[in-house]
Formats: sequence, C-alpha cells, structure tokens
Amino acid sequence: MRGVVMYAPGDVRVEDRPEPAILKPTDAIIRLSATCICGSDLWPYRGADKVDEPMPMGHEYAGIVEEVGSEVTGIKPGQFVVGSFFASDNTCEICRAGYQSSCIHRELVGAIGTQAEWARIPLADGTLVATPDVPDADLVPDFLAASDVLGTGWFAAVAAEVGPGKTVAVVGDGAVGLLGVMAAQQLGAERIIAMSRHESRQKLALEFGATDIVTERGDAGVEQIKSLTSGLGAHSVIEAVGTQESMMQAIRSTRAGGHVGYVGVTHDVALNGDELFFSHVHLHGGPAPVRRFLPDLMDRIWNRKIRPGRVFDLELPLDEAAAGYQAMDTRKAIKVLLRP
Amino acid sequence: MRGVVMYAPGDVRVEDRPEPAILKPTDAIIRLSATCICGSDLWPYRGADKVDEPMPMGHEYAGIVEEVGSEVTGIKPGQFVVGSFFASDNTCEICRAGYQSSCIHRELVGAIGTQAEWARIPLADGTLVATPDVPDADLVPDFLAASDVLGTGWFAAVAAEVGPGKTVAVVGDGAVGLLGVMAAQQLGAERIIAMSRHESRQKLALEFGATDIVTERGDAGVEQIKSLTSGLGAHSVIEAVGTQESMMQAIRSTRAGGHVGYVGVTHDVALNGDELFFSHVHLHGGPAPVRRFLPDLMDRIWNRKIRPGRVFDLELPLDEAAAGYQAMDTRKAIKVLLRP
Repeated sequence: MRGVVMYAPGDVRVEDRPEPAILKPTDAIIRLSATCICGSDLWPYRGADKVDEPMPMGHEYAGIVEEVGSEVTGIKPGQFVVGSFFASDNTCEICRAGYQSSCIHRELVGAIGTQAEWARIPLADGTLVATPDVPDADLVPDFLAASDVLGTGWFAAVAAEVGPGKTVAVVGDGAVGLLGVMAAQQLGAERIIAMSRHESRQKLALEFGATDIVTERGDAGVEQIKSLTSGLGAHSVIEAVGTQESMMQAIRSTRAGGHVGYVGVTHDVALNGDELFFSHVHLHGGPAPVRRFLPDLMDRIWNRKIRPGRVFDLELPLDEAAAGYQAMDTRKAIKVLLRP
Repeated sequence: MRGVVMYAPGDVRVEDRPEPAILKPTDAIIRLSATCICGSDLWPYRGADKVDEPMPMGHEYAGIVEEVGSEVTGIKPGQFVVGSFFASDNTCEICRAGYQSSCIHRELVGAIGTQAEWARIPLADGTLVATPDVPDADLVPDFLAASDVLGTGWFAAVAAEVGPGKTVAVVGDGAVGLLGVMAAQQLGAERIIAMSRHESRQKLALEFGATDIVTERGDAGVEQIKSLTSGLGAHSVIEAVGTQESMMQAIRSTRAGGHVGYVGVTHDVALNGDELFFSHVHLHGGPAPVRRFLPDLMDRIWNRKIRPGRVFDLELPLDEAAAGYQAMDTRKAIKVLLRP
C-alpha cells in the first residue's frame, strides 16, 4: 500500500509500505476514508524533534473497518469508525476517569502511521467509535477532524473550564486553536477572544464563534486581554501552541482563580514556580483524551450541528503528501487533508 | 509595644515598636490574644530570602478588636476576630470568585508584623471574621491556626479536589501539611498517606486522620505512593513545602487526571513543560485564599469539631520569640505560639 514516510527534516516521501495485518486478537484493520497532516508532524519536519530512522507518519484517521481480530466484539467490518491518536482499552481505572490518552495499556497510533491506505488499530473495542451508518461523503472531513484536532481543542476548552458566563482567550490559531474556539462556543462561553494575526484564520475563528480578535502576541497580547477584561484577565485560556512564549502568554492572560487548558505539545518549556504560584491559575492539559469526547462530538457531526472539517483548507491525494507538509510548514494551509 | 523584628538571617529581636494607629477609615486595631511563627518566616531566617532592612515579623493573628476606622461597619470593638495574611475587600470580582488572596485591593499583613502586642489590620470589614462571642481561652490556639496554616492546608486539599473515595498523599509534615491531613479527613477522603520521617509528626498526622505513613522522600517516596495505589498514583496530592524536590515528588505521586494542590511558597522551582504535559495532572495552588474558608473553619472550631491548634507544640512569651525561631529552624518544634 501507499504510505507517508519521513526520512529527515523536510524529507517526506510517499512509498510502498507493507499492508497491515492483524497482530493481536484485539486489533482492527481500517481502510482510510481520509487522513491528514497534524501541526505536531511539523516538529520533526522542522527539525525540532529528531528523526533517527525513516518514520511512518500520521496519527489521525477515519475510515471503514475491513477486518477485526478474534476478540473484537464491539466493532464490525463495514462500519465507519473514528479513533484517537492513543489506542486505549477504555476499561482501566484511568480510562474510566476520562484519561484514555494515559490508559495503562495505551499504544501510540502515530508509531503505526495513518497517512496511508490502510492502518492497524490496536485495542479496537476500546479505541474506535462507529457512526450509526456510513456517513455522507461531505461529512468525512468533519469526522476526521474529530480524531484529533477537534477532540484536542475540545479537551483544552474543558480543561480550561469553559462555560456560560465565561470569557475565554485562545492562544494559537492553528486547527486546534480554531477548534478550541468552536468548543468554547458550543460549551456556552459568553465571550471568546481569538489571538491571531492571520486574516484567513481570524475569519474562520469568527465563523466558529469568536467575538473578539487580538493580533498582538506575548506580553502585548496579554495587555490586550487584560484591557478587554477590566484588567483581570480571562476566566479560561486555551493554549494550543506549546512554546515558552505561548505558555507564558496563556498563564499571564488568565485571571487569578482562572483556568489554563494547555494542549500544544510542549517543547523546551520551563515554568517558573514563583510566577505560577502567585498567578493563582489552574493549569491542566496534556495529550487530549479524545476518546472521552468522541461519542458526543461524532453525534454533533452526524447531526450537522458542527462542521469542524472546515479547518481543512487544502485537500491533496495521498501521493502529494510532501506538498501538503510544505503548505502547512509555510502556513499557506491551516490543515491538509490527504485522500488515499 | 513589644514586637518581633528580624535584622538579618538568624538575628531575631523583640523590641519596642510604635503602637499602631488607624491610618485609613477601613482599618481596625486588634490586641493579639496570640500570634505565632510561620514556616515561611524561616525562609529569611535561613537566608533563603533577603533581609535588606529590619523587618517586623508575623502575619498570623487572632485577637480582640480595640478600635475601628470610621468606615468599618461589620466589625466592632470587643469582638474576637481572625483574619488572613492578605487583607482583602471581599467584594471585588476576584474575592467573590473565592480568591481573596489575589483581591485587587489586597494588602500584605506581613508588612505590618503581627508578632506583636497590637496590629493594624487593613480592610477590616472584608478581612476579619468574628466569633459569636469571645471564645474560651483553650480555643485561642485553634482560632490562631485558622489564620494561616489551617486555611492553607484546607485550600491545598480543596485545590487537590480531595473528597469521598479519593486517595490523598501529603508531601510535607510541617503544620500546613499536617493540617492538610486534617482537611482531607474532614472533606471525606478515603485514604490519606502522610509523607514524614519524624516520629512526633507522624503521630500527629495519624491523630489528624492519616491512614498510612510513607517515610521515603523524592523518587523513592513516589514509588511507595505508587505501590500503595495499584501503580497509578494518588488521586489528590497536597504539596506543602515549596522546593523543586517536593514539587516533583507531588507531581509524580499523582495519577493521570489527578490533582496537585500546592501551597508551599515556591523557591527556585522550575517545572519541566514536557513532564508536566505528559503527567496529565491538574495543578493549582498559590497563596491560600484563607478568607474563603474562615467562616466554615471558625464554625468547626467554635463547635470543637476540629482542634487544629494541636500543631502548636511549643508556647513561649512573645519576648522569647528568638528561641521560638530557633526551635522551628532546628525542627525541635512543629509550630511555636507566642503570647504577647
């Protein structure tokens, strides 16, 4: 089958890879209806993460079940399914508490590489969620978005305790930040401030429910958030970048007693204990337990209440994945959908 | 009046200081029934915080109102009152959200120095809480404990989301940690693991409701907590020290999705963003908004449901404050009560 492999920073190739097979009785094989490139794929692409050997790429997926292992009981061939980047048993104590991405049996789907025609998904019963029927083709990008960026933005909003009456600020205008705006809107936030300096992303943020746009970054951005909130800061701040600057921008934009939900995969971040102590913020985040939210999110998509697939502003055949990476790296595209 | 002044690390003197007077119409003057030495007073005593000029010491207080300013309406001379180390208006948006220690008009009572015969308390209406009547003398240490260490331990427990069915670990066996144990017990925790290697403190922890004692520290302590919790870590961890080691011990002792409540005043702590991200813990803490809890805590004390004053294991006349600092510095005393 065809699949994306990264050989080195900037060197992404689509080549023939072995077709996946059932390795464990809890596995399922899916045929990908669509897959995509993640902002986090840009870390190795830009050399910020090491590429020691050729890496199959991709951890987002939606598609049709082709085959299941002998112990899989909840998922059947022919179903359209979505899963998260961490496979999880969904039965352990950590899963039941809603932290499936820290499941005691978790497996990283990224190690398998879903930018391909087929993929083996471990722990299929715990990981995959099926739609009531095979969805209309126009909904596929929306379901694909649920696999990571929507679920991650949603988790950030929940971690930031977004809700009615709250003012929410969103640091980061990538797909996760934009879908954090959507989550905040869906969760009833009163005011949603998107921090972005890119016109096309500002536009999408406003369509997703942002009420204000702040173009300044860093401490100047913090000052803008404060001036919009009687000097106090936002109740809830979503951090969707993962750098030192963005983390501090998020923490400093939050009022005392407020909540920061951070989901940008942190890179070389060190938080000063004194500043955190006196900030009085709540800090929560990490790899989003997307599985917790999938049934609800997929229901909203099935019923066309939300259209998170709108973050895909470039669609390419799988064989042109390299051009997709380039478009995201240069910020010409927010997020690239790949058709196997 | 007599009052404690720190001249340099290790150099604490009791000397004549000017008697306080009403400076603002919102002030009150109280005559201290008792005052005490805080673990945080040891930071400058040990040279970990600078002492640039002679500093009046003390920020914990309970006593009788002597005089109030012209705008004070809720507090009257003759009442027995307790307040927190941050004076607060208790009416601003931050106070109403329960974060009085970040009140937009907050004033640090520590700058006034309550290790003295009298003290001026700013924002008396917002800051002070009165008992129904002047309490029996034996309750004075309990009420004094409510002023900081009990309220701080309580906040840590609330920040760590302690509650029924939860396993709680407490890092730090000072007065705050021990009263964190008491708070966890009062808030209905199922299992309370106190981390202490000192026999007298272990004993008090057990009396306050600890169900287990772990004597190991650092990563060995973490391993012990994990082995007591099916490898997962505690649901709720109270951090009551403030060092790099204790913060990491707390974070690593917490299960994914669990909560760390940290109240040890941080000193040279830097949190690694990657480790925090993948730990999946909730982190909340800072200077405890003791005022939020005072009415409830004072009610429990008035009705003799809790006896937090038991953390005072040494009582001295105010004039012997220097010996009290020495006893706490050498850990011969958990907490020293001073009688003016």
